[in-house]
Amino acid sequence: MSLVVVGTVAFDAIETPFGKTDKIIGGAATYISLAASYHTKDIRLVSVIGDDFPQETLEMMESKGADLEGLQIKKGEKSFFWAGRYHNDMNTRDTLTTDLNVLADFDPVLPESCKTSKYIMLGNLTPAVQSRVLDQLEEKPTLVVMDTMNFWMDNALAELNKVIARVDVLTINDEEARQLSGEYSLVKAARKILEMGPRFLVIKKGEHGALLFNQNDEVFFAPALPLEEVFDPTGAGDSFAGGFIGYLADTNDISFENMKRAIIVGSAMASFTVEKFGTERLLNLTQDEISTRIQQFVDLVQFDISLVNC
Amino acid sequence: MSLVVVGTVAFDAIETPFGKTDKIIGGAATYISLAASYHTKDIRLVSVIGDDFPQETLEMMESKGADLEGLQIKKGEKSFFWAGRYHNDMNTRDTLTTDLNVLADFDPVLPESCKTSKYIMLGNLTPAVQSRVLDQLEEKPTLVVMDTMNFWMDNALAELNKVIARVDVLTINDEEARQLSGEYSLVKAARKILEMGPRFLVIKKGEHGALLFNQNDEVFFAPALPLEEVFDPTGAGDSFAGGFIGYLADTNDISFENMKRAIIVGSAMASFTVEKFGTERLLNLTQDEISTRIQQFVDLVQFDISLVNC
Repeated sequence: MSLVVVGTVAFDAIETPFGKTDKIIGGAATYISLAASYHTKDIRLVSVIGDDFPQETLEMMESKGADLEGLQIKKGEKSFFWAGRYHNDMNTRDTLTTDLNVLADFDPVLPESCKTSKYIMLGNLTPAVQSRVLDQLEEKPTLVVMDTMNFWMDNALAELNKVIARVDVLTINDEEARQLSGEYSLVKAARKILEMGPRFLVIKKGEHGALLFNQNDEVFFAPALPLEEVFDPTGAGDSFAGGFIGYLADTNDISFENMKRAIIVGSAMASFTVEKFGTERLLNLTQDEISTRIQQFVDLVQFDISLVNC
Repeated sequence: MSLVVVGTVAFDAIETPFGKTDKIIGGAATYISLAASYHTKDIRLVSVIGDDFPQETLEMMESKGADLEGLQIKKGEKSFFWAGRYHNDMNTRDTLTTDLNVLADFDPVLPESCKTSKYIMLGNLTPAVQSRVLDQLEEKPTLVVMDTMNFWMDNALAELNKVIARVDVLTINDEEARQLSGEYSLVKAARKILEMGPRFLVIKKGEHGALLFNQNDEVFFAPALPLEEVFDPTGAGDSFAGGFIGYLADTNDISFENMKRAIIVGSAMASFTVEKFGTERLLNLTQDEISTRIQQFVDLVQFDISLVNC
């Protein structure tokens, strides 16, 4: 099924304890689309860039199956730019620069072909912009997945709550789940957030894995793969989201059992992203590498409980 | 098989965001023995207390299957006392009081019946005391499991390294694994620590679960159960260790596959402990409650990967 991906396509400059980059390709929608492209081929990208964005990157995205009809290119303007520095623990970071540029007045326009799409991924953006995307849909999609962050909880909570009420799956990290719900226990936090509208909640815990909750108090946990090196966490959450919704769009099955598999696929895609700077690791994966990685997740948590006799 | 448990039997006073206790029963060996008692009945406790320790607690321990021949009771002296206060996140705590009392010159003496025991659990203690226990063994045990903490890495590293080289399984938390190895990546940390002697390493990550590594680069991950309430984390790591070695002693099988099951059993025991203050939750569990809890771990991580087709 076709997948609409809305989010930033941008430049990043990244410093980690292991090195630093000049301006490289980044943006939530870039990571989401690349990660999804290994699972589904009908991706429609909705975003905005300036005319400073490299043509070869756009061609690469198209070669991965991304339709760029919904990508606005603003003449004489600059693409969104973010620069950040990760701390030694790689779990926290400082933003050094945020140049909104074309993002400042981004008004997403869905091409006609997107208005009846069945799978919609709203990458992290101003909640009002996420709402404007949903306003343009002409048919109820099968699944709307939304990512957001604490910045909007601090600065646009009313708008954020409105869009949260309209989506099927919300993906946030553990601290954001606590902030949004006012509950420390993630079980209680999930219950409160699921009362706000979404049918499913994914709580991303970075190197500690991810939790999937539904409204029936069911919960699934996917670990993160213990990695030799975490080189650059940028885009991990977006790669997770891309693998997750890409797998669901491909299988067109939103049962809880299939969502579990989608969480594992998303976790696998994120585990690749962090192994190199930026999008590098996502550019040339093979299906064999992905299958092997998914098998590592199976091996990591698999045990034969039938023999446990307490 | 018989299980020797060496560690503290003590009083604790605990403050958490949810309440505080007066002096209650605590100590690593207490939690270890109670958690193990649901899995194996031949437990020999080696510890030291003062004559201020309640007789009914000793009788309760005996009723759970703990042999107290190796428990020294020092007339006119006081039992070890620890008081601590947990921060709001329940992951960190301040020590308010440490009264070593009888622990200051604890010299463990193994009863004859313990010197040929096959399973040995060394709870967190001065490394030199842990070594003196191993010195008294007359036959090579099947498995020696050792717990320790960052305090000994800071203050007795040479002694600590000596005893680590003599054990089969080391259990420490993630920060301690990083400190002991000098590696941030837990995969690399595990490899370095396994070169120091132990055949297996358990890295405890509290609310984020536990990792089991062996010397063949195999790894198993057990999640922590997402709980409604974490009331008091005291004793969680010791309950984990007790469930782990209790299950291994009962099944007398130290294959990696069985160790995985033991990790799940340990995680289940720890998940009970944190639901109430101190040892309360461990006193009257039923086998049904334990089986149900273990099934929750299965449900939490179980997915059918055979249907994943990437």
